[in-house]
Order: sequence, then structure tokens, then C-alpha cells
Amino acid sequence: MSNTVHFTPGPSELYPNIDQYLQEGFDRDLYSVSHRSGAYKEIHKAAVEGLKQLISLPDNYNIFFLGSATEAWERIIQNVVVNKSFHFVNGSFSKKFYQYAQQSGIEATAKEVAPSEGFDSISREAIDSDTELICFTHNETSTGVSTSFEDIYATKERFPDSLIAVDVVSSLPYPEIDFSKIDSAFFSVQKCFGLPAGLGVWLVNDRFIEKAKQKKEAGQLLHPHHNVFQLKKQADAYQTPSTPNVLNIFLLSKVIEAMNNKTSEVIRQETDTKAKMLYDFVANHEDFDFAVANPDHRSQTVVVAKSKKSAAELNEILAPHNLAIGSGYGEFKTSQIRIANFPAHSIEDTQRLIEILSKS
Amino acid sequence: MSNTVHFTPGPSELYPNIDQYLQEGFDRDLYSVSHRSGAYKEIHKAAVEGLKQLISLPDNYNIFFLGSATEAWERIIQNVVVNKSFHFVNGSFSKKFYQYAQQSGIEATAKEVAPSEGFDSISREAIDSDTELICFTHNETSTGVSTSFEDIYATKERFPDSLIAVDVVSSLPYPEIDFSKIDSAFFSVQKCFGLPAGLGVWLVNDRFIEKAKQKKEAGQLLHPHHNVFQLKKQADAYQTPSTPNVLNIFLLSKVIEAMNNKTSEVIRQETDTKAKMLYDFVANHEDFDFAVANPDHRSQTVVVAKSKKSAAELNEILAPHNLAIGSGYGEFKTSQIRIANFPAHSIEDTQRLIEILSKS
Repeated sequence: MSNTVHFTPGPSELYPNIDQYLQEGFDRDLYSVSHRSGAYKEIHKAAVEGLKQLISLPDNYNIFFLGSATEAWERIIQNVVVNKSFHFVNGSFSKKFYQYAQQSGIEATAKEVAPSEGFDSISREAIDSDTELICFTHNETSTGVSTSFEDIYATKERFPDSLIAVDVVSSLPYPEIDFSKIDSAFFSVQKCFGLPAGLGVWLVNDRFIEKAKQKKEAGQLLHPHHNVFQLKKQADAYQTPSTPNVLNIFLLSKVIEAMNNKTSEVIRQETDTKAKMLYDFVANHEDFDFAVANPDHRSQTVVVAKSKKSAAELNEILAPHNLAIGSGYGEFKTSQIRIANFPAHSIEDTQRLIEILSKS
Repeated sequence: MSNTVHFTPGPSELYPNIDQYLQEGFDRDLYSVSHRSGAYKEIHKAAVEGLKQLISLPDNYNIFFLGSATEAWERIIQNVVVNKSFHFVNGSFSKKFYQYAQQSGIEATAKEVAPSEGFDSISREAIDSDTELICFTHNETSTGVSTSFEDIYATKERFPDSLIAVDVVSSLPYPEIDFSKIDSAFFSVQKCFGLPAGLGVWLVNDRFIEKAKQKKEAGQLLHPHHNVFQLKKQADAYQTPSTPNVLNIFLLSKVIEAMNNKTSEVIRQETDTKAKMLYDFVANHEDFDFAVANPDHRSQTVVVAKSKKSAAELNEILAPHNLAIGSGYGEFKTSQIRIANFPAHSIEDTQRLIEILSKS
């Protein structure tokens, strides 16, 4: 059995029963079967159909598997942008997405706010009307700042010809998303899905594919690997272009099945309950304070707090209780702590964490 | 316990004790730890240092982790080719590597022979002297054709200014390679290393990095993800640019440790022993014949035979004995069979497979 409950923001605590699923896959020889076999296609189908149900994904979307969410940054830009992308940057990961665009030889522009701050005027932001791609990070894992989907949808209404891509790496399946008002989203499985790392999941709609088609027909799509046409051809048959991470796709299918049995509504309610517990604790303990000043911008899934003690010091106190939290990111490594609030974190363990931190 | 012994050419049979390693990683919380932690770096270091020992990799080489060997095709071309690549094509995988180059917008040329045929005159092949990259597939998994490393080295001598990349996807660690006579190689872990799929390993030397530097300085390296500079910066600290497949890197470190304990010499001897057993069987059974006419071109690690019965028919006979073989690839799906001869396949199981096929 696993020892420590990891409240780190990813890799994080594994979803319940992962060890049993790992063994089940081994016993069923799934880690040896061909990725062109019916046995594989069944696993692939279970994962993508289960995900569609869990997040209410419309039929005009495709689900692709990548090596990581980081790869998705590159693939999104490569597939659809010829000239211009725009990025809302409020932390290290949204900034890296922006930097990937800059390094791709396109004209990338960013609206950047200080870390720990969110965006108050997204819908009034000056964006060139010929911008092909507008990128949001729904939940900045580095800072615990969340961006409102209502603001994202409003941007879509203002710029109906632009594609909207949303990083939901550390939030899905928590947010209830109207996918008709965005065009692409992506996440990695080691956050809210409670899996070992090594798999990115990329959602793209038909408008995104259509835009990629224009780039391809203009002779400007020069990326043979994981372009949307190669991915879609295989995904339509519940397969992947190259041998995928079958083990993790199998685990994903099992976790999604368990999540669907629990229902996304219950997962959201529990997430809200635990987020309230954690933020109430931060508000009431003199050693901690909110890292994100504006309550509307605080993430429900990654709680970030200013802390008198560093995460390293706190983890020394937590270790005998088999609990671990995350340090602040980058420049905030010693001055902030990050506590993941993912579906794998039970209300009981969250309560226990709060009790021990309260006495720290 | 796993049921069937998979002689399929990848995904294939798992290396002994993989289930124990999977459980060990779970018990040690390795699937939850941060990829920036000391615990992760130890695993990473064990995998790469162990691999260096196993294949006698010189110090001027870097070891990078990718999502798949297929990704390596793209990354190799992206990082170093501005104008011209040349490809020796003798089956589906070497052809796909060539096609990736064509789709990357460079001038790619190929010397193509019929499937099941090898190359007799590599050292006399007409190749433009300004070709930046020459690509070989040491072991064509689709056809069971092997290319001699002596011929590859001779090409290097003729074209000292070109970089030489070698696909060793389904052969390493079997071949004893003089890495000073090539510049890059790559493999995936679900072949000879007997692991679940989902991890590519890419080896590049300092000449390769230097050539990438020239491309970068000319403003022609427009690939932010998994370019060699991003990879090397992290690899030098036993890390990866994005959250990697920690589970598989841990399994790889354990399998490589076991292989080093066994020694590469013994692995080679056993591979030769089993290859001889399998080819003798093909020669002597009237239902089978060599797919590769020239004995010098026959792979030691993927034995391909013409077969009167299809793999599907043979697998019905083999299934009650908990054995499985691979079908022919592509156009040879029903007329050929493929039998993997990887380190995970024991002499005893190979003998048992031959006995049952003999009576089929």
C-alpha cells in the first residue's frame, strides 16, 4: 500500500485502487498486447467514451493522446497558427505556453499580469482581430489563480473567427465547460485524474481541424508527428499513430469509470467542500494568508497560500503523519505553499491535513 | 501472474519481475513524487547510467526521454536538417521515417529496396556530399531485415560531415555498436527492454548538438518542445523538460539493472542461440520458409517467416499453450509470421513455441 497522501499539485495522490488496476492490466496481459488489436481498441474506446460522458464533450470534438500537456502547447500552435497568437499570462505555465509560441516563429502577443493576480478585464482586452489563436490557462498551477470561463466565453463572442484554446491541466474535470464556446483544451493525467504521469489528453473540435486544414493546404503544416490529421485518422478507429502509453490509457479508463459512477456533480460538490475547508483554514491561521488577493480568482483545485514556514519545514512536521504538500513555484518556493485539491484527495485526509497544519 | 508468453514484435513479452517492479514503485510512492525531487532524479540517473554501462555509450553522448521512438523521427529531422536527408528504406518503418522527412519540408531522398531485401551496396550508394543526415534502420521490425553496422560505419567514413542516425528500436541492446561511428540512435522500451509502451529513448552525441546549434543560430530551429537544448539542459541534471513517464523510467532502471547483472554478453549469446533455434526450425519445417532470402540480412531479434497458415490461425493453435506470435506486417499480414526474439523470451519458452509450431 502507498504510504504518504500527496497533496502536491502534480504528480499528486493516486486515485483510489490504482494498484489494483495496475495489477489487473498486468493479469490481463494488456501491457503486452498490440496497439492495433481489438483488446487495445476496447481500452481506448472506454477511456474516450467515458471522458466524453464525464465532461459532457460534444460530438464535434476529438480526443487525442499525447506524451504530455506540454506537448499540447507545441501541437496547438503548430497545427493552426500561421501568423498570430495571443496569450493571457498570469504565472509560469501560461508564460511557458506563450514562450513556446514565441519560439515557434509566429507573432505571439501576451497580456501579462503579476503572479497571484488574475484578469479583471479580459473582455475589454485589445487583441488584433486577425489573431488566429487566443490562449487561456484556466487554472495556473504555479500560482493558484483561476480564470473565469464566463470571461473566456465572452472573448469567443468578441472574436468569433479566432480559435480559443484553454489549458485545463490542473482543473478538469472540476469546471463545467460549455465546449461550444471554446475550440481546444488539454490536460495531463497526473493532476485531477490521479494517475502516474506520462500521458497528455488533447481535445480539439471540428473548427480547429478546419483551420489546420487551411494551414496544411497552404503548405505550411510541416509537422509530421501528432498533427491533427494523423491523430484523427487513428483516433476515429480508437487507435493512436504510434504505440501509446497503453498502461496509462487503461488506468485512465478505469479512473474515469469510477468518476462516472461517482458522477461529476458529486466530484464538484466535494471539491467545493474541500476548497472551502482549506481557504477557511488559510484565512484563520496566523501563519498563513491568501496568495491570491481577489477571492474570485482563487483556484478551487490548487490552493496557494503565503506561509511563514516553507513547505520543506512543514513537510518535516507532516511526514510522520504520512502527509505531504507542495512548495511554492519558482520565486515563491519558500514563501508559499501549494495544496492540491483533486478528486483523489478525500474530505477526511483534507481534514486531517488541516488539523496537523493548524498545530504546526 | 501474466498468462500468455507474447512473441509478438512489440508490444511484446514483459521482462521478468515487471509486476514486482510495478508494485515496488507503487509502495515507494514513486508515481506521486515530483519530477523535480531527489527521489525522481535518482531513478532517472539509475536508468541513464545503467544504460550507458549496458551499451558502452561514450561520454560525449546524451540520453533523452521522448514519448515514443516515432517522436524521435520528427525530433531528429527538426533539430539538425536544414536542407537534405538521405534514407535507406527497406520496410514500413524506415519508409515512415523517410516520409516524416518529406513532410517536414526538407529535401529527403531514399534508396529503397523491396521488402524482405537488404542493402548490398550501401558503401557505394550515390549520396549528395552536402547531405546533412543519413538515416538507417538497423532492424526493420516490419520485415525482419537487418542492416550491417559495418556498412553503416563505412558510410560514416565516406561522409564524415554528415550526421548518421540509426533506428535501433527493435534491436538494442543486442548489437554491439561503435557509437563513435554514428551520431544518434533511438529505441522504444516495449521491444527488447520488455516494458509497457509509452517511452522513447533518444541518444545524441556532441556533434549532433553542435549541428543543432548551427540551425538554431541561423534562426531555423522553430521547435520549442523537445529540441536538444531544452532536453540537454534538464538531462544534465537527471531531469526532463515536462513531467515524464516516471513509472516507465523506474521500470527501465530496474530492467537495465537486471540486464547489467546478467551482462550484455550473455544477452547476446542467448539471443544468438534462440535465433539459431528459430531459423533452423523455419528451414526445416515444410509449412515455413525464410522471408529474408539472404542469410546476412536476417534479423537476430525479429524472425520473419513465410507461412502457409496465417498468424491468426497459428495463434488459435498456440493459445491453449499460452503462447502468441505476431502476424506479418501490412501486405504480408496473412502470408508471413513474425516471432520476436527479445531478452524477455527465454530459451525454454522459445523451445516450447518451436515444438508446438512443429506439430501445427
